[in-house]
Amino acid sequence: MFFASDNAGPVHPKVMERVIAANTDYAMPYGKDPIMDEVRAQIREQFEAPEAEVYLVATGTAANALALACYTQPWQTIFCSKVAHIEEDECNAPEFYAGAAKLTLVETDDKMTPDALRRAIVARAAGDVHTPQRGPVSITQVTERGGVHSLEELQALTAVTKEYDLPVHMDGARFANALVALGCTPAEMTWKSGVDVVSFGGTKNGCMGVEAVVFFDPKKAWEFELRRKRGAHLFSKHRFLSAQMAGYLADGAWLETAKAANANAAYLAEGLRKAGAEFLHEPAANMIFARFPRAIHRKLHDAGARYYLWDGTLEGDDDEMLAARMVCDWSISRDQIDQFLSHF
Amino acid sequence: MFFASDNAGPVHPKVMERVIAANTDYAMPYGKDPIMDEVRAQIREQFEAPEAEVYLVATGTAANALALACYTQPWQTIFCSKVAHIEEDECNAPEFYAGAAKLTLVETDDKMTPDALRRAIVARAAGDVHTPQRGPVSITQVTERGGVHSLEELQALTAVTKEYDLPVHMDGARFANALVALGCTPAEMTWKSGVDVVSFGGTKNGCMGVEAVVFFDPKKAWEFELRRKRGAHLFSKHRFLSAQMAGYLADGAWLETAKAANANAAYLAEGLRKAGAEFLHEPAANMIFARFPRAIHRKLHDAGARYYLWDGTLEGDDDEMLAARMVCDWSISRDQIDQFLSHF
Amino acid sequence: MFFASDNAGPVHPKVMERVIAANTDYAMPYGKDPIMDEVRAQIREQFEAPEAEVYLVATGTAANALALACYTQPWQTIFCSKVAHIEEDECNAPEFYAGAAKLTLVETDDKMTPDALRRAIVARAAGDVHTPQRGPVSITQVTERGGVHSLEELQALTAVTKEYDLPVHMDGARFANALVALGCTPAEMTWKSGVDVVSFGGTKNGCMGVEAVVFFDPKKAWEFELRRKRGAHLFSKHRFLSAQMAGYLADGAWLETAKAANANAAYLAEGLRKAGAEFLHEPAANMIFARFPRAIHRKLHDAGARYYLWDGTLEGDDDEMLAARMVCDWSISRDQIDQFLSHF
Amino acid sequence: MFFASDNAGPVHPKVMERVIAANTDYAMPYGKDPIMDEVRAQIREQFEAPEAEVYLVATGTAANALALACYTQPWQTIFCSKVAHIEEDECNAPEFYAGAAKLTLVETDDKMTPDALRRAIVARAAGDVHTPQRGPVSITQVTERGGVHSLEELQALTAVTKEYDLPVHMDGARFANALVALGCTPAEMTWKSGVDVVSFGGTKNGCMGVEAVVFFDPKKAWEFELRRKRGAHLFSKHRFLSAQMAGYLADGAWLETAKAANANAAYLAEGLRKAGAEFLHEPAANMIFARFPRAIHRKLHDAGARYYLWDGTLEGDDDEMLAARMVCDWSISRDQIDQFLSHF
Repeated sequence: MFFASDNAGPVHPKVMERVIAANTDYAMPYGKDPIMDEVRAQIREQFEAPEAEVYLVATGTAANALALACYTQPWQTIFCSKVAHIEEDECNAPEFYAGAAKLTLVETDDKMTPDALRRAIVARAAGDVHTPQRGPVSITQVTERGGVHSLEELQALTAVTKEYDLPVHMDGARFANALVALGCTPAEMTWKSGVDVVSFGGTKNGCMGVEAVVFFDPKKAWEFELRRKRGAHLFSKHRFLSAQMAGYLADGAWLETAKAANANAAYLAEGLRKAGAEFLHEPAANMIFARFPRAIHRKLHDAGARYYLWDGTLEGDDDEMLAARMVCDWSISRDQIDQFLSHF
Repeated sequence: MFFASDNAGPVHPKVMERVIAANTDYAMPYGKDPIMDEVRAQIREQFEAPEAEVYLVATGTAANALALACYTQPWQTIFCSKVAHIEEDECNAPEFYAGAAKLTLVETDDKMTPDALRRAIVARAAGDVHTPQRGPVSITQVTERGGVHSLEELQALTAVTKEYDLPVHMDGARFANALVALGCTPAEMTWKSGVDVVSFGGTKNGCMGVEAVVFFDPKKAWEFELRRKRGAHLFSKHRFLSAQMAGYLADGAWLETAKAANANAAYLAEGLRKAGAEFLHEPAANMIFARFPRAIHRKLHDAGARYYLWDGTLEGDDDEMLAARMVCDWSISRDQIDQFLSHF
Repeated sequence: MFFASDNAGPVHPKVMERVIAANTDYAMPYGKDPIMDEVRAQIREQFEAPEAEVYLVATGTAANALALACYTQPWQTIFCSKVAHIEEDECNAPEFYAGAAKLTLVETDDKMTPDALRRAIVARAAGDVHTPQRGPVSITQVTERGGVHSLEELQALTAVTKEYDLPVHMDGARFANALVALGCTPAEMTWKSGVDVVSFGGTKNGCMGVEAVVFFDPKKAWEFELRRKRGAHLFSKHRFLSAQMAGYLADGAWLETAKAANANAAYLAEGLRKAGAEFLHEPAANMIFARFPRAIHRKLHDAGARYYLWDGTLEGDDDEMLAARMVCDWSISRDQIDQFLSHF
Repeated sequence: MFFASDNAGPVHPKVMERVIAANTDYAMPYGKDPIMDEVRAQIREQFEAPEAEVYLVATGTAANALALACYTQPWQTIFCSKVAHIEEDECNAPEFYAGAAKLTLVETDDKMTPDALRRAIVARAAGDVHTPQRGPVSITQVTERGGVHSLEELQALTAVTKEYDLPVHMDGARFANALVALGCTPAEMTWKSGVDVVSFGGTKNGCMGVEAVVFFDPKKAWEFELRRKRGAHLFSKHRFLSAQMAGYLADGAWLETAKAANANAAYLAEGLRKAGAEFLHEPAANMIFARFPRAIHRKLHDAGARYYLWDGTLEGDDDEMLAARMVCDWSISRDQIDQFLSHF
C-alpha cells in the first residue's frame, strides 16, 4: 500500500531489458553512444520536432534547473506557481543554476491562471535597473496538486508570455500522466502550445533515473551542454541513461505506464469518493488530495499504508478530518488499492 | 582495441546483478533505501572508519565538486596539480560548486611534490584580505598522468597541509587502481595518511555511474546532503545507485577489476617497451603515456585502435615520435592487447 | 519641490567639512585610517556596544547584501516583507551575495507582523533536504511604506525568530528617521530588541554615500571583511568613507537631519490632510503615501513637483483619486512644502 | 616618505573643488545627474569614441570584475598575467562576478608576451565540453611590476586575441601613467590597439574613489547597468562620483598628476641607480622594484619610510640584498624623495 510517491516504485521491465542489453563492449562516452542517437530520433518523432535538441540527465531537479538556466540571466526572475516543485522542493537548485536569479511566485493553489500570471509579471516593472528583470515562465504539468492544464489553459498562459516576450518552460516530471489525461499529442502539449523547452520526465513513470530536456529551439544546445558538464550532470557511461530512455519510449511503454498510473488513481479516487472522502483538488492524473477522518488515517497507518499527511498528524481527535496526498505509480496493484480502501 | 579511457567499458556482472535484484517493489527514495545502509556499513568496514559518513552520486565530477565545496569558502583557493582533472576537465564545476572560489595550481607534471605544494601555499599570503585565502588541497590518486603516490609521498604532502591547517581531499576516480598498485589498505591510503574526504570512484572500474564521497569527519554530513540536493544530484530511486556500489564492493569485485585493469596495463606496457616505445611517465596503475613513431600510430588507427594522441596528429612525417595516452579497463582482453601490439 | 526620494538631496555641511578636512597627506588605505578608529568608537558608544564590529560601504544595497550574506547559507532562505527593498529594489543583489539563496516573502503591506512571519517560517519545513532551509529574518525600519515598528513590535518579531533560532538583520537605510520617531536609543532599537546586525544608513540622511554595517556579535567580522573585498566594496582611500560617517555622527548631526526630515514630512502630511487627501499608510517618519485627485497631480506636475505616482498615470479622468509616494529629506524647505500645498 | 602605494595619497584640488561644487540642491540619482552627461561627453571626446558607453564605479576591483563579467560566461576562462591584480589582489572578485568562471594564468613576470598568451589559449582546447572554454583576455597597463606595454606590444597581443576571436579588457588602474609614459592618445592605447573595454582608473591618480568603465562597443551597456546594480555598485547620489571624474578630466588634471607621478618615480629611480641599487624591472611609469642592502632598509624603516619589502624581512644579515616595491603618486614632494635617498 505505497502511495507516498511515484518516485519509489520499480523500473518497468522494458526499461530494465534495454539497460541490460546495453551492457556489452565499449561505447563512446558522454552522450556520443549510438543509443542516444536512437533516443534523439525517437523524441524528435514523438514530438514532431525534427530540429529539437535532446539531452538526458538523471534527476528531475537537474532537468528543471539546467533548462531554466539556459533561459535566465542572473538578474532576472523566473515566474512559477507558488506551489511549484522548483520553488518548494529543490533546495534552491534553480537559483543556483541560474546564477542567483530569483523566483517570483504566481498566486495559485493548483493550476496557474493567466490573470495571476499577468499580475506577477506586471509587478516586476520593465526598464528599471532596480527591479529583478522579467525572465522565463515555468509551468508544471501535472501540477504539484495533481491538476492538468487543458490545451486551452496552456495556450491562455502562453498568450500572456508572448505579450511580454518571455520564454516558457514546462516541468513535465509527470509529462506522460498529463498527456494521457488530455489525450493529446506531445507536440500539442508543448511547442504547439507555446512551450520552448520541456523537462520530459522518465523517473517517476517507470525508469531508474532519467529525464530528457527537449529544446524546440536548437540555439540553446551548446550552452546546455556546457551547463550540464559544469553542473557535473554529464555521464561518462551515458549509454545507461540512453538505454533507459530508449526502453521507456519503445513500443509506447511510457504511455502504458502513465495510463496504468492514472487508471489506478481514478480507481482509488472512486473508492474514496464512495467512502465519503472530500477532495481538495479534483484528481486529474495520478495524484489525489483527499480528506477523511483521523481514525481512518490511524487504521491505514497501522496497516502499513504509506502516504503523506498533508495538514496534520496522527495525534488528535478521532473525528477530525485530515488531508492526505496519495500518488499512484504504474506498478501498484488493484489488490493493494482494494486493501487500502477496505479500511474506510 | 579500446584504450581511449576506462570510462567507456561495460559494467561488471556482479554490479549488474545487484541492480537487477534491486528492482522489486517500492523502496524508500533519496538515500533511505536499505541497500544504502548496507553500502554505508561496507565502506565503513573497508575503510576501518566506523564514524565515516558515506554518500553516493553518479559522476566523478559531482563527487569532487561537492566534496571540495564542503571544505571551501568562496573567497578561498583550492590547491591542486596543474594537470588535475578538477582543473582541466570539469568545465569549472569545482568553482561553480564552491561559490566562485579559485583553483591555485601546484607546478608538477605528474605527482604533486611537497616542495611545489608549499611554494603554492606560501604564495597566497595569510592574513591579508586582498589575496585569495588558503583552502583545501586536492590530491589525485591515480594522477592524471598515471602516477601513484606512495604512502610516504602522500604523508609528505599531508605533513605540509597540516603545517598550514588545510583540509585534504583525494580525487580517487581510480582509487582501486592505486590501492592495488600500492598493496595497502583503504585506511592507509586515506585517513591514516591525513586525507579528510575522498571521492571513491566506481564508474571507471566496473560500475554504470556511481561514486562514493566518504567523509572521515562526520561533521560535514548535513552540509553535504544539502549541497547534493541543491546541486540536483540526489536520486529519488537511489537504490539503483546503492545497488551498483553494493555489487561493486561485494566479494571484492572492486579489487578484482582494479587488479585486472592494472595487469592489462602492465602487459601492454611490457609489450610497448619491447617494441621500443619511450615512456613519458613510468606506468604505475592502468594508464600509459608512451611515444612511438607516427607510422605505427597510423597503422593502429587504420586497424581501429582507439586512444588519445597526446601531442600531435596523424598528419606528418612517418618517423616522428608521437605520444599516446592509453588506458586499460578491467574488461579489455589479452587478445585485444596482443592485436594492438602486433602493429608495432 | 523635490519629494521623489531622500536619496537625491545635498550633503550636510558637517559631513562635507569632515571630507574636506580629511584630504591632507597620506592615510593608511583599506579601512586602517585613523578616522575609521574614531567612527568605530563613536558607533560603539552610540549603540552601547563596546564589542560591536563596524564596517563601512558606500551603498545601502551593499550593506544589506553583505550583512545578510554573513548569516545565510546558499541553501537557505532569507525571510523578509514582500515589499522589502531587498526583494523589490536590489536586482537580486541579496541572492547574488548569499550564493544563490532564496528570499521567502512575509505577507504584509507595511510592517511585518509576528503571525505572518511565523506562517512564512513554518511553511519551510525543518529537517528535510528538499525544502529551502530557514535562514535570517530581515526587518526594514523605516519600512518601504513609511511605517515604523515600535519597540514592542520589534520584540514581538524577534520573539518569533528566537523560537526558531534565526538571526535578525535590520535594514536601517532610514535608521535615524525611525529612531527619532520612536524617541528611543540605538541600542533599544537594535540589540536590546534582538537584532544581530544592522545596516545603519547615512546616504539618505545627509551623507554622500556611506552606510555602516554593525555586527553586535563580533564573530562575523573576518568573514565580512573577506566578503566586502570579494564584492569589490573595500575602498582604498577609505578615509573618505570614514570622514563622511564621522561628520554624520559628530555633534548629533545625524539626529538633527532625521528630525528635520520627519518634521518636514509631518508638516506636509498635515497640509495634505487638511486638503482632504487620503492616506494609504499612516505617516510615521519621513515618507507619505497619500491619495488625491488627478487634477491636482497634473497641476503639481506642471509646476515642477517631483514625486512618484504610485498607482496610475497623469492620463485619465480629472476626478479619479491617484496615490503618490512623497519623501522628505532634511534639506527641503518649508517654503517648498508650502508651495507644493498651494496647488491643492 | 610614503612609497607604499599610490592609493593612499590626497585628492587633487581640482577634483575636490568639483565635489564641493556639486553639493547644491537635488540631483537626479543613479547616474542620471547632469554631471554624468558631461563626464560621458568628455570621455567620448578624449577617447575619440562617440559611441562609447561610460559608467562609473567607486573601486578598481569593481571596474575590473564588472567589465570582465560582461564578456565572460561562467564556463569560460579569463586569460591574464600570472601576476595580474585580478589574480592576486581581488580575493576572487572576478570569479564571483563572472559566475564562477576561471582565470587561466599566462606565464610572465611583467608584461604579457604574445607567445605566452598563445600557449595559454591553445592549452584550453576548443570544441570540447570538458575543458574550461576560452574567454576574454585581460591586459594590465601599467603592469603590476611597473611595466608599460608599447603600442606595438599591445597590438601584438591583440593580434593573438583576434586569431581566436577573444574579447580584450584593459585593467587601466594606472591608465594615465601608462599613457603619458607612451606619449600616445587614449584611443591609440585602447580601441585602436584592439581593446574592447577598459577600466579607466581615477582613484590612484588623484581622485577619492572613482573608476570609469568604457565600452567601445555599446552593445554591453544594458547588461553592465544590471550587473552594476546587482553588484550593489550603483550610487544613488551618483553626482559625487561624476563630480570626481569631471574634475579629474577637466583641464587635463589627470595628465598632470600622471606626469608628476612618473617624474617623481624617474627622479627616485635615478637616485637609486646612482646609489647602486639593482632594478628587478626597468621602471617605466610610477612604480619601482629595486634591490639594495638590508642595512639601508633598516635605516629607511627607522626614519619612517613606507614601502613594501618584496622578498624578505628586516631581520637578517646587514649586507643581504632585499627588494623593495616603491610607488610614487602625484603628490609626493622632491624633498621627501631626497630625504629618502639621503639614507643610501
